[in-house]
Amino acid sequence: MYPVITISREFGSGGHSIGEKVAAKLGIPFYDGEIVTRVAEESGYAKELIEEQGEYSTSANKWFDISAASAMYFQSPQDEIFIAQKRVILDCAAKGPCVIVGRCADQILKDRTDCLNVFLHAPLTNRIKRVMSKKNLTEKEAKNLILKEERRRADNYHYYTRQIWGASANYHLSLDTSLGYDYVMDVILGTSKRLK
Amino acid sequence: MYPVITISREFGSGGHSIGEKVAAKLGIPFYDGEIVTRVAEESGYAKELIEEQGEYSTSANKWFDISAASAMYFQSPQDEIFIAQKRVILDCAAKGPCVIVGRCADQILKDRTDCLNVFLHAPLTNRIKRVMSKKNLTEKEAKNLILKEERRRADNYHYYTRQIWGASANYHLSLDTSLGYDYVMDVILGTSKRLK
Repeated sequence: MYPVITISREFGSGGHSIGEKVAAKLGIPFYDGEIVTRVAEESGYAKELIEEQGEYSTSANKWFDISAASAMYFQSPQDEIFIAQKRVILDCAAKGPCVIVGRCADQILKDRTDCLNVFLHAPLTNRIKRVMSKKNLTEKEAKNLILKEERRRADNYHYYTRQIWGASANYHLSLDTSLGYDYVMDVILGTSKRLK
Repeated sequence: MYPVITISREFGSGGHSIGEKVAAKLGIPFYDGEIVTRVAEESGYAKELIEEQGEYSTSANKWFDISAASAMYFQSPQDEIFIAQKRVILDCAAKGPCVIVGRCADQILKDRTDCLNVFLHAPLTNRIKRVMSKKNLTEKEAKNLILKEERRRADNYHYYTRQIWGASANYHLSLDTSLGYDYVMDVILGTSKRLK
């Protein structure tokens, strides 16, 4: 049996596409957008808010959203979404082999020994090109979007896990996707068999 | 032609052994201890001091070793060693394909496009076992040694490169050596061919 594979990825690195291909090749479920749908069902929050907050909630958000007094007694919407997301991720992994993209899944599942944690990144220039063509943006717009989303993703990860986002030691395998998407996919597939 | 391969590694992860095997398999020079010998020849400093300072010099050392006044006018021994080390590393890489272990080589050679940067790490428990058996230490001694040397290696890297040691994005490939030394070697060999 293949393990659960978590894929964390820099914005624009192609991590979603590579994860999708890995899942297809192994014939196992791929969870990315579906997590949003399930969290929406569980929590009652709108999909758009979950997409926005699920990976991009920062401590700065929290500061403005809730007063110190209410923070002592109530969970913020971001925290509620994180908790629902955590439950959904644990449930996906409990069902059997799958690929899960983003959302601190590597840390949420860190007590499992059958979980392969992968981090995918790429040079900024490559990511700018990809985001320009995927989102039809100018070079400057793509660069600004990447830097902004990246900062928020890293802060969200740090806020909920107290770990540094992208630190090699948190992943079995980290790869620069400019080595080639197919090559990267092959290395992930090969490595997943080491944990069987 | 194979590229230059730099291997950065956590203390006790087996990075030295794996690097040595990669070099042997490719039939290219392996630089680790030899760098110390060459830096000693170039700088006139004793090998022991170079071994001690070459990867383990921290800003804390500098604070105690040199007064603020002298720091403005003179290089500290650590800085002199770092500069000699940098020159030796650039020279090794200029000669052709090779494997270079540690000593900020990934950052020193960062302008080369034929350089494969690898980071090797392993869970602390695995590293403790390895260091216990290699250095004949108790579990506690091995753990203390790893944590101390690790902190100094990371600080030295940060001091000279302004980069975070072990951040995935600085390496083409990061691997957990508990996946198996031979497997890790195979992935490095395979990836080195991608950069030919």
